[in-house]
Amino acid sequence: MTSVELVGREFSVIGSRVPKYDALEKVLGEARYLLDLEMPGMLHAKILRSSHPHARLLSIDASKAARMPGVVDVITARDVRLNNLGYLKDNPPLKWGKVRSVRDEIAAVAAVDPETASEALHAIDVKYEPLPPVTDPVAALEPGAPLVHEELGTNRVNLDFGLSYGDVEAAFQRADVVVEGTYRTQYVAHTPGDTMGALAWVDAQGILNVYTNTQAPFLYQRWLAESLGIPAHRVRVIQPHIGGAFGRNLDVYPHDVITAALAMRTRRPVKLLFTRSEELQNAPTKQPLIARVRQGATRDGRLVAREVDAILDAGAYVGWGVFDARVMQYTVTGLYSVPAVRFRTTVVYTNNPSTAAMRSAGNSQITFAVESNMDELAERLGMDPVEFRLLNANRPNTVTPQGARITTCAMPEAIREAARRIGWRGRHSAGPHRGIGFACYFHVGGGARIYRSDGCGAIVKVDDFGGVIVSVGGTEIGEGLDTSIQLIVAEALGVPRDRVRVQINGDASMRLWDVGTHASRGTFVCGNAALRAALDARRQILEGASKILGAPPEDLEVVDGFVRSRTDPSKGMEYDKVVRRMHFFSGAQGRIVVASSFYEPPSEEPDERWHGNVSATYGFGCQAALVEVDPETGRVKVLRIVSAHDAGRVINPNGFEGQVQGGVAMGIGLALLEELHLSEGRVVNGSFEDYRLPRVTDIPEIDVVSVGEPDPEGPYGAKGVAEGPVIPVGPAIANAVADALGVRIRDLPITPEKIWRALALNVQ
Amino acid sequence: MTSVELVGREFSVIGSRVPKYDALEKVLGEARYLLDLEMPGMLHAKILRSSHPHARLLSIDASKAARMPGVVDVITARDVRLNNLGYLKDNPPLKWGKVRSVRDEIAAVAAVDPETASEALHAIDVKYEPLPPVTDPVAALEPGAPLVHEELGTNRVNLDFGLSYGDVEAAFQRADVVVEGTYRTQYVAHTPGDTMGALAWVDAQGILNVYTNTQAPFLYQRWLAESLGIPAHRVRVIQPHIGGAFGRNLDVYPHDVITAALAMRTRRPVKLLFTRSEELQNAPTKQPLIARVRQGATRDGRLVAREVDAILDAGAYVGWGVFDARVMQYTVTGLYSVPAVRFRTTVVYTNNPSTAAMRSAGNSQITFAVESNMDELAERLGMDPVEFRLLNANRPNTVTPQGARITTCAMPEAIREAARRIGWRGRHSAGPHRGIGFACYFHVGGGARIYRSDGCGAIVKVDDFGGVIVSVGGTEIGEGLDTSIQLIVAEALGVPRDRVRVQINGDASMRLWDVGTHASRGTFVCGNAALRAALDARRQILEGASKILGAPPEDLEVVDGFVRSRTDPSKGMEYDKVVRRMHFFSGAQGRIVVASSFYEPPSEEPDERWHGNVSATYGFGCQAALVEVDPETGRVKVLRIVSAHDAGRVINPNGFEGQVQGGVAMGIGLALLEELHLSEGRVVNGSFEDYRLPRVTDIPEIDVVSVGEPDPEGPYGAKGVAEGPVIPVGPAIANAVADALGVRIRDLPITPEKIWRALALNVQ
Repeated sequence: MTSVELVGREFSVIGSRVPKYDALEKVLGEARYLLDLEMPGMLHAKILRSSHPHARLLSIDASKAARMPGVVDVITARDVRLNNLGYLKDNPPLKWGKVRSVRDEIAAVAAVDPETASEALHAIDVKYEPLPPVTDPVAALEPGAPLVHEELGTNRVNLDFGLSYGDVEAAFQRADVVVEGTYRTQYVAHTPGDTMGALAWVDAQGILNVYTNTQAPFLYQRWLAESLGIPAHRVRVIQPHIGGAFGRNLDVYPHDVITAALAMRTRRPVKLLFTRSEELQNAPTKQPLIARVRQGATRDGRLVAREVDAILDAGAYVGWGVFDARVMQYTVTGLYSVPAVRFRTTVVYTNNPSTAAMRSAGNSQITFAVESNMDELAERLGMDPVEFRLLNANRPNTVTPQGARITTCAMPEAIREAARRIGWRGRHSAGPHRGIGFACYFHVGGGARIYRSDGCGAIVKVDDFGGVIVSVGGTEIGEGLDTSIQLIVAEALGVPRDRVRVQINGDASMRLWDVGTHASRGTFVCGNAALRAALDARRQILEGASKILGAPPEDLEVVDGFVRSRTDPSKGMEYDKVVRRMHFFSGAQGRIVVASSFYEPPSEEPDERWHGNVSATYGFGCQAALVEVDPETGRVKVLRIVSAHDAGRVINPNGFEGQVQGGVAMGIGLALLEELHLSEGRVVNGSFEDYRLPRVTDIPEIDVVSVGEPDPEGPYGAKGVAEGPVIPVGPAIANAVADALGVRIRDLPITPEKIWRALALNVQ
Repeated sequence: MTSVELVGREFSVIGSRVPKYDALEKVLGEARYLLDLEMPGMLHAKILRSSHPHARLLSIDASKAARMPGVVDVITARDVRLNNLGYLKDNPPLKWGKVRSVRDEIAAVAAVDPETASEALHAIDVKYEPLPPVTDPVAALEPGAPLVHEELGTNRVNLDFGLSYGDVEAAFQRADVVVEGTYRTQYVAHTPGDTMGALAWVDAQGILNVYTNTQAPFLYQRWLAESLGIPAHRVRVIQPHIGGAFGRNLDVYPHDVITAALAMRTRRPVKLLFTRSEELQNAPTKQPLIARVRQGATRDGRLVAREVDAILDAGAYVGWGVFDARVMQYTVTGLYSVPAVRFRTTVVYTNNPSTAAMRSAGNSQITFAVESNMDELAERLGMDPVEFRLLNANRPNTVTPQGARITTCAMPEAIREAARRIGWRGRHSAGPHRGIGFACYFHVGGGARIYRSDGCGAIVKVDDFGGVIVSVGGTEIGEGLDTSIQLIVAEALGVPRDRVRVQINGDASMRLWDVGTHASRGTFVCGNAALRAALDARRQILEGASKILGAPPEDLEVVDGFVRSRTDPSKGMEYDKVVRRMHFFSGAQGRIVVASSFYEPPSEEPDERWHGNVSATYGFGCQAALVEVDPETGRVKVLRIVSAHDAGRVINPNGFEGQVQGGVAMGIGLALLEELHLSEGRVVNGSFEDYRLPRVTDIPEIDVVSVGEPDPEGPYGAKGVAEGPVIPVGPAIANAVADALGVRIRDLPITPEKIWRALALNVQ
């Protein structure tokens, strides 16, 4: 059972319950994913990866593989010149000299079927000189540790996300109570329905076409071209239906480049698609975190200082995951009102997996650390954790030390609603073996300027038949952007919802630029772009109607598809008739209705001190978790979650609830169940039998609550909410476990074993 | 060997020789036509047609067919409610009550493969009561003739294209010489590579999707929806590569509606594609014409009066072919300067095939009549036919009696060039059994306002990588619109041609409205739309560059992709860099480059007297044909054609030459070879063995000549030329045959038999 409190009802479709735009085609099996795509003459690619986490490559002999029947092409680094990938351009799509992880790409085969390609991999003879691996980021920094990139002379990555605002030392001096703890989050797999892959071919025009489940088609176009050494205007990116991605598909990976290179060499379509076990073994992971958190408060419960030291294991190459630290910054400096803050980061190369952003991009990790520590601090203060949070909660119209300008903010309301609905009556009052925990979050809600442009473009066309076609640069990966866009455009134009068709994904050629689906920005940024285009189209219709009806445009409105005078009820006409009249009855002055827009949110790139208002607005929320712990087995059962969010005005209640429910489910996985176990950098539980995702029976009743006011910058007042719900689940459950048992688990996931050990230790 | 005289060379890509935009994909077999398209679960449709040209339908029993294995659906008029098609809405997609031609659709089957569908047709039991057919349009008007549409009480179609300007009777009185003749043109098949068909399916959203080789996607959307009784905004039209159409695909036909209805009923994809013999038997034909032409001239060779009485056989239902009369009007009233003109039309229902527009849409038929008569008149006057034509030729800045405002016009130059290049030395001077003939044409060259809007929309996007994407509403059916658009946009933006990608055909959803590819309007109308969008995009780039370079926009130009100051050579930057700077370095003021435009030509819908300037400009030309006739066999061999055209400035010389060569080849087919022979309305030569298309050995040397000045309204001065070349071939050859032998053939095609009979008659 879920409930949504809607802010208002003055709209015709905004806030109404509608099915997801593409729900039926998904349910009916008509949606075509990368998995479903085939082309005549298509080859299948497989990649040979390293047998060692760290080794010198002495020789690669692919001649036998190349001669196998059905094998069309075999490539190694010797055969193709490819430029390095990644933020620090440290990742060659095909490795030479040495390998730095068991995922390292050594050779690739294109063959007539996947089986032949796999067999050919076995025929490639690679000679290694194994090197000692380093798989612990702390050990990797010790003198004499094996060097992952020898030429750098250190395993410390040359990236510093550290910052400091206010006099932190003085603030800690002022604090009456200081609590410090070290918190760890684990390796997690993204596990969307879609596995990674690409289908590439060179067309007769010489254009490289790529079907990809990327979340960022325009960055993909650029980066793929750069790695291949071809102009980006010779690359066409096409997105089929995408079955989730959760941040995994924000980057271009060696397999993308390899697939394209094979297509360019063979002049045939080449498809590469990870099997589920290839996915679990080779896809980038969520960024694990080791964070020492130290917070100080005055006796009356005012937070005065916070210091976080974070160690981020980058794995062998720097991917987007490391940039989770930029999201962590805002939580370190901005979750709750705290005047003096310091954040230190150490990014480390190891022979472990590389990492990617994953839903909330660092915020779930850092919020686990901060919110666990908040509860510990409240306990040390002898304060009710809800009261403590309320006292320090973020408030509207404030600025964080890092420069985040908070406009709308209903964090206090979210805390109160969560406490009320979970039935909070104070610590240790939930019953035997039961506990209640709380955690809040602070997250971008109006885009996130991590690239020079955070904008999105949209085109709206209203045709002679009353059909409205909206093309947006944004990407639908299952999050429901399509539905938000449909509702926003229908509302803006004043036409029935089913008149609006959304063109999303597909060929990116004529779609207008968008930075990609991440940072909960779709509804806010793409919605604002679509809104502006729709309002322009509406203006054109009203101007046309003005001439036809003989009333000034400002006197006209569109209601349920009917253009009418506000002052003279006799003047009116169906909007599609207006459009036809404008087009067909104006002779050589005839015009059609089409509008384009580009919305760039009013946010700032952080300066060299990492100071800046990175988002046009921010989202807030609070979750309460009621758990029951079996003291014999240590098993935690989540009985109930209250998930209260300030997402501004809710455009699409079903979508809002879906995001919250999905986020909470994912958060439960992170909190209690999911972990990629590594042995010398290799995943040892690389199947869904061994990698434990949440099942429906793990998901409790979720009380979904919307709080807050319409945001002045958001489309119809909306703020982003896609990532928020996942963030506080882990700390809320950890806090609930502590409330139930009096033991605190500081590293995720909270397994029965860890509880059992902690209880055993407690008893001793 | 061909030659093109280019008007000017002040451009970077306009007028340069480039390969057709989609040539490689066609040559390499990558282009996907309707034929190539398949979908999972796709059914195949076949149509049961009448066994009689005219009959009452007593009963239809499809029960046995419906029970056959592999048959998924069988429909008759009883099963689906469909609205009539055609101009007069006289054509039910599925017939009931009676059938009026052997093409009449009685039932349709959807089955798992085409063979099963065909077999099922045989199992449908139809009982007829045959009625006497009427297949002669003159006989059809006689009292007591069988009535095709009994409820009308007459076979005369309620359409009158007649007009009269000037005092025709008085003018004929003034004439010193009057010559009258009756001319006939035949039934001809369009025979493009693509046969007719459709592939339809209803998607999960409930949208009816149709792959179609229509030439007019937006009219198709409307008319298909109207016939199906669904809103047009629920129809999505998608055009694959189209292998020619020549006017045949301007309408929506029963098979389109039937295919869609089967898809809606079965909820599976349904494909219908004519075999070549189905095509020759059932596709609409070119409109045949019977025209009595009477012209008068003064002794000194001034044309003073022209009168044409035309009979048009509409077949059983009124299709676009009948509207050829509207094109004929302009030639009757405007080919050569003639002050008093009258045109009478009689449109007749018969049990013959229905007709469609075909390249020149009536102009080749009427020009055969008028230009044959012109030669006869010149001979009667004792004047050189070239001199006679020159004397009466159209001139710039004149207005025809019907209101066609001629701006640019190089008809005199075309006549002179044709005479000079063919080596004209006067009548009967080409040598034994040889003859030279001339014919001119007057045709729309700036669109043709036969629908309320003659416009086209375009969108131009310049991306961060310097890629330019152009989407136009126009349709590529092989005519080369894609290449013209590419050149125009590259020229307007000042960027290399290969940076411009043209999006044409495909999904019509986001393309902006266009009336369709017909009337030689593509380069002119769609080119003007693309030009305006490109110039707007250029303006945006120059404004952006102005801020970056610190120079006023009007001081900036783009040359070879480089934006530079005209006055300060130190100020310059690559255009794509400008675009990136505008986007990425302007913070929240960042913008992208996208422009849309809609071009509606400054032409007029004719008034109730059929008076009006139907096109924004007009094309002219003259052809000379040198033929040799074997007096024993009557066989005509065309030795040489000079084809001189005023197409304004030639955008794409290869395209221009291709259109001229193709048009002349088609004209030779019409003149000498092609004819659908009918027996009681049924085609008796319905295969390429019996229906004689021109072969490469039938095509002589063609001297392609461009004359004329840039047109002020045309994009870079271009005028349409697609149809022109086909128009004068027939009369030029007929006039050459007369020059060679002294016998005149007044009905096409000019077969050996007709010549032999004429010669035999002459001898008698």
